[in-house]
Amino acid sequence: MFDVTIYDTTLRDGAQSEGVNFSVEDKVSIALALDALGVDYVEGGYPLSNEKDMAFFAAMRQKKLKHTRICAFGSTRRAKLTVQDDPGLAALLSAGTPAVAIVGKSWDLHVRDVLRVALAENVAMIADTVKYLKARRLDVIYDAEHFFDGYRHNPVYALSTLRAAREAGADALVLCDTNGGSLPHDVEEITRAVLAAVGGVVGFHGHNDSGCAVANTLAAVRGGARHVQGTMNGLGERTGNGDLCVVIPDLQLKLKQRCLSDENLRRLTETSRYIYEIANLSLDDSQPFVGRAAFAHKGGLHVDAVRKNPVTYEHVSPETVGNERRLLLSELSGAATMLAKMEKHQLTDDPKVMKQALKEVQKLENMGYQFEAAEGSFVLLVRRMLGKQKRFFDLRGFRVIVEKRGHDEAPITEATIKIGVGGQEELTASEGDGPVNAIDGAMRKALERFYPSLREMCLIDYKVRVINTAAGTAARVRVVIQSGDRDAVWGTVGVSENLIEASWQALVDSIVYKLVKDEEKAAQA
Amino acid sequence: MFDVTIYDTTLRDGAQSEGVNFSVEDKVSIALALDALGVDYVEGGYPLSNEKDMAFFAAMRQKKLKHTRICAFGSTRRAKLTVQDDPGLAALLSAGTPAVAIVGKSWDLHVRDVLRVALAENVAMIADTVKYLKARRLDVIYDAEHFFDGYRHNPVYALSTLRAAREAGADALVLCDTNGGSLPHDVEEITRAVLAAVGGVVGFHGHNDSGCAVANTLAAVRGGARHVQGTMNGLGERTGNGDLCVVIPDLQLKLKQRCLSDENLRRLTETSRYIYEIANLSLDDSQPFVGRAAFAHKGGLHVDAVRKNPVTYEHVSPETVGNERRLLLSELSGAATMLAKMEKHQLTDDPKVMKQALKEVQKLENMGYQFEAAEGSFVLLVRRMLGKQKRFFDLRGFRVIVEKRGHDEAPITEATIKIGVGGQEELTASEGDGPVNAIDGAMRKALERFYPSLREMCLIDYKVRVINTAAGTAARVRVVIQSGDRDAVWGTVGVSENLIEASWQALVDSIVYKLVKDEEKAAQA
Repeated sequence: MFDVTIYDTTLRDGAQSEGVNFSVEDKVSIALALDALGVDYVEGGYPLSNEKDMAFFAAMRQKKLKHTRICAFGSTRRAKLTVQDDPGLAALLSAGTPAVAIVGKSWDLHVRDVLRVALAENVAMIADTVKYLKARRLDVIYDAEHFFDGYRHNPVYALSTLRAAREAGADALVLCDTNGGSLPHDVEEITRAVLAAVGGVVGFHGHNDSGCAVANTLAAVRGGARHVQGTMNGLGERTGNGDLCVVIPDLQLKLKQRCLSDENLRRLTETSRYIYEIANLSLDDSQPFVGRAAFAHKGGLHVDAVRKNPVTYEHVSPETVGNERRLLLSELSGAATMLAKMEKHQLTDDPKVMKQALKEVQKLENMGYQFEAAEGSFVLLVRRMLGKQKRFFDLRGFRVIVEKRGHDEAPITEATIKIGVGGQEELTASEGDGPVNAIDGAMRKALERFYPSLREMCLIDYKVRVINTAAGTAARVRVVIQSGDRDAVWGTVGVSENLIEASWQALVDSIVYKLVKDEEKAAQA
Repeated sequence: MFDVTIYDTTLRDGAQSEGVNFSVEDKVSIALALDALGVDYVEGGYPLSNEKDMAFFAAMRQKKLKHTRICAFGSTRRAKLTVQDDPGLAALLSAGTPAVAIVGKSWDLHVRDVLRVALAENVAMIADTVKYLKARRLDVIYDAEHFFDGYRHNPVYALSTLRAAREAGADALVLCDTNGGSLPHDVEEITRAVLAAVGGVVGFHGHNDSGCAVANTLAAVRGGARHVQGTMNGLGERTGNGDLCVVIPDLQLKLKQRCLSDENLRRLTETSRYIYEIANLSLDDSQPFVGRAAFAHKGGLHVDAVRKNPVTYEHVSPETVGNERRLLLSELSGAATMLAKMEKHQLTDDPKVMKQALKEVQKLENMGYQFEAAEGSFVLLVRRMLGKQKRFFDLRGFRVIVEKRGHDEAPITEATIKIGVGGQEELTASEGDGPVNAIDGAMRKALERFYPSLREMCLIDYKVRVINTAAGTAARVRVVIQSGDRDAVWGTVGVSENLIEASWQALVDSIVYKLVKDEEKAAQA
């Protein structure tokens, strides 16, 4: 049905990005988002190196996926060990995934200088490992590390490593440009030569050190590759991996190689942004296809020409990848995404309200709000516009004090809060591990008397991002909170120059959303 | 002497980036930096549209340049006007530059739908304009807008526009991928076809909408182009232009097409960062060749291999482009990384201390610290272990109060702090936009009396990350701060369950690092 298999390694290679540090929950959320996008394989991590990765595989065994196969990553057996005795392979099998990726060496220099084994022993290590895993009926993807460098130095040896994997039953042979130094014409030629020599399914895995990861991936497909690896948003160490958010639309819309359904391709922008949020990274506005500026047109003649005939100034239509045209200083689009959200939450189908909501969202986005990971706040925003939103409580005031009495003393944090519910007022106080925790504690203490269901709710995640970094600590701050109860998980957002105020906004939204949800459930029952 | 001419349009196309706004002084600084780098042409702007651009050209006429020719940008004469009467051409000439670039249409669709003139009239407009400017003995660069789209739709017409420019004497015919939708194999093939049809010097100008601007530029050169246009750091509207910081090293180091002297190539990283600075943009750490992470290595074994033989994990040597290898301190790091860091900061070479430091770093990393972006804190950690670190001040205590008096009121934040320096004590207070800002303000106020050099220091970036998200707001928080003065930028880190405490630790380290640095500088002087 599809021409090219998409293999995502955001959770392994992408997690090597400086400053990216996924929790187990983050990894699960990303895997589910990639399944919804229709990615064929999701590489989840390296079971041997990392307990966190093992917890991820355990969690994923409990999930029903629509399309994606989860894959664990490991190496060929060590020299002088049998496959049965190799602790890495034991760890790999214990991940319990339907697919495994095995990395092996194809560059003779690496075999001698890094691995320090005989060239023939390396070939045996590859063959033994693949055979062992295939006997367990797993999908086996063989990653040929440093393949292009290896091939340039010693093509005969590099091909012999591939042949060993192929003959042992590997389902795909993936040519890796590990140092990212290759250029497209080379990649195309070498991929073609490999296919002529070994046949079967060949794949490509590239890094962006020459600024050509995307082009190299396309070149490999032109050379006959039918499996491509990459990461969402090009995350990855050094200069990053091939960006699937660019590779996929290039393949599908330009080279006419289908990777996703048209419907799923329209989720690309949303998924890209969701993953930036989870990784706590800022969006790259200039990212091709999915960036906020990818289809932005500046005023005047240009905008006029785009309106007359978009093909004059756009290489593809933004809707195909779920992005939108932005005509700066002019009428706004993006109604489709908004419509979908309104439908999902059964808010309204009145086009007037929609237009008004769109304007409001854009105003807030200019102030630094983001609703991609904060659908709870979006729902409350529209409900407020519709006059549907009752006030569950009023804040009369709060005060937070953080005090530290000496260099090595832990600080003490205390919050007091006064709220009104109906005619009643409640003044209470709470200590906490920090200011936000103390406010959260005090607010719940004050409200639980009136709304006992808040006891079921808990905070799952709390993220802070500085928006305008140029001003140091006085910059604006965005707080995104994820909350959950037995039935659901929802995100809310707050923005302010003051971290406490931003957190407060997000906390209030998270509580109000829970109360709205409970009311609606009660009304339906 | 050089194989490919480098034409920079940072000051015109790059200035179209959202959020970039160069002053006349900025533009002059950038032009001088590009001259020092050895760029052949610097396109300075569009005299007709912009007084600022005219002021730039006036300023540049006073400068002596070593290598660069300044170029002004304009269009072919308008329909129904003679070249003598065209106000755009008059403005262009008044810029007084040795070179001019003229943009014209090559896509029949654009001629009809946007320009709305007859196809033959467009050809005449091109020929007249180039002839007029060549008669004034200027270098004339002819930019064929939307050339690739035009060629795909109507190659005969597209080539006829180029022939008109060539016959009128244009020095270079630049094929523009204006919508950025082309892919490398296409660009190479079409460039080759153009050269076969019209000969002479052909150039390329590309945008990154397919994520292939760099690869397209290389493909054009492989197809015979001898002139390439782009911007520093890939600045430009939408997804940006071809990034000269990547194109130049790819051409010179990989395709063996000389563009700069080896000495000038080593200035590339510095020039890239200088331009980010002037544009007031954050660096792109993952930028190929010149990014801070371009040669960063994580993970013990990997680092070990790089030290043994860099070619195993690096596609080019970082020194060739003036960048440096970075061995990241992280979870996976081993003694090799640590050793390299200690060497860089001349801390110690005692293997005992190294071992102890490694243990300490690993203990702290288990608690949530990360030293990748916090080398300042790492240096202080080792200095403390060595007993080298004096206490510049003592904290006697601080108190932060955040108070909000109603739902819609902005909160008020106030910090008081008491510190001791030598025998003296200072108690002071500061308001702030938030708790961290208020503490920062109060601490500087208290310390500047004793350490006036703190006035030179500023906070550049402030990042917060929740580490263990499972516990909601009671989770541990990591704060990373980047600070800088005239000479350097350094990162520091703090971790605590309390955000205020974590921020405090990072703030204190940032100040202490500055004071250590100043002392060492004074000792050397």
